[in-house]
Amino acid sequence: MEAVCIGAVTVMALLEQSVFSLQVIYARRKYSVAPPATSGPPAFERIFRAQANCSEYFPIFITALWTSGVFFSEGASALCGLFYLYGRLRYFWGYAQSPQGRLAPLYFSAQILWLLIGFSSLGVFFSFCRIYLNLDLVHMLCSVLGFV
Amino acid sequence: MEAVCIGAVTVMALLEQSVFSLQVIYARRKYSVAPPATSGPPAFERIFRAQANCSEYFPIFITALWTSGVFFSEGASALCGLFYLYGRLRYFWGYAQSPQGRLAPLYFSAQILWLLIGFSSLGVFFSFCRIYLNLDLVHMLCSVLGFV
Amino acid sequence: MEAVCIGAVTVMALLEQSVFSLQVIYARRKYSVAPPATSGPPAFERIFRAQANCSEYFPIFITALWTSGVFFSEGASALCGLFYLYGRLRYFWGYAQSPQGRLAPLYFSAQILWLLIGFSSLGVFFSFCRIYLNLDLVHMLCSVLGFV
Repeated sequence: MEAVCIGAVTVMALLEQSVFSLQVIYARRKYSVAPPATSGPPAFERIFRAQANCSEYFPIFITALWTSGVFFSEGASALCGLFYLYGRLRYFWGYAQSPQGRLAPLYFSAQILWLLIGFSSLGVFFSFCRIYLNLDLVHMLCSVLGFV
Repeated sequence: MEAVCIGAVTVMALLEQSVFSLQVIYARRKYSVAPPATSGPPAFERIFRAQANCSEYFPIFITALWTSGVFFSEGASALCGLFYLYGRLRYFWGYAQSPQGRLAPLYFSAQILWLLIGFSSLGVFFSFCRIYLNLDLVHMLCSVLGFV
Repeated sequence: MEAVCIGAVTVMALLEQSVFSLQVIYARRKYSVAPPATSGPPAFERIFRAQANCSEYFPIFITALWTSGVFFSEGASALCGLFYLYGRLRYFWGYAQSPQGRLAPLYFSAQILWLLIGFSSLGVFFSFCRIYLNLDLVHMLCSVLGFV
């Protein structure tokens, strides 16, 4: 119940993904591409692939967001989550316009995702040391750096 | 451990998704479409797309189900989850028969998903107000409506 | 915070999925298949489909891993998770070499996934009996088998 910031980012991610799905439906109508076909004019294929790519990364993002939020830091994860969603929004609109337009925001989102995966790894590693080796690395680090 | 109803719906979702995956394997054999090809007779492509669409929405559904279950109401979420899974079952069999057959259950599932996303949003918003603004909107609403 | 073993498997799954995504990017460059196209030489299509298949099963795996870990047993789920990730690694490299090469590790991963779904079902069923029927089946089973 206390992971409300991560919950808020999760809701935003759900809404963003819903908007992308609606865009594919509009593009299917606009370019007359009836299901189950997934190929058509380049403009349709770009929107279709943009949504497919965002969908593919959605579970990875949500998993990294929560693992990082639970084991590392709620605030840092929520902030990264907001940046990721912003990057994905720019990626979708960039890709809808041209294949080149997707690149910059794609690299940005990928970097944020790596950050979340890095936070998750650190968080799990620290928890592991604390629970199984009785070794509080975070506290030790703070002591060494003179924060405590 | 207390979110056992959401857990039960999650298990049903996993089983349903497994059944859909098996259907694609059977269709690959029946219509002789060997991997990595994903195109073939329309009957195969419909089953392939039906499963792909359900897979695509699976993480969105699970995320909305748990966010809504944790932050809003376990019972309401579990009930919506059951309706969603029923809609997806009808969607899969409808799409396997004809592109038209997928439409009604698709709209039904989409509406249930919107409901779950709406519950998630409300739940997170109420939790946010309670934790950060010390404002119990649910209690206030009940008071105003004369329930308390 | 105590589900640190499941957390560790989750982090490994995220890293594995990231590696597969990078492989598709390398294959796109190597075989000159610029997005949004997804078809090209068979060697590219195999890598593309291998990654797509792993991505498709990623949310199912993560959901089964956590449901099984929370409701059944953390240790058993984490162990299954490790086997699943190893199977997926062999599947990816096998598929990259030939369509035949994917079969053995695919069946292996699928069996592990069924095990995780089975554990989840049992775990949810036992929790359900304990909470709603006040019936501790695990304790009863241990008594019958003479473990308690």
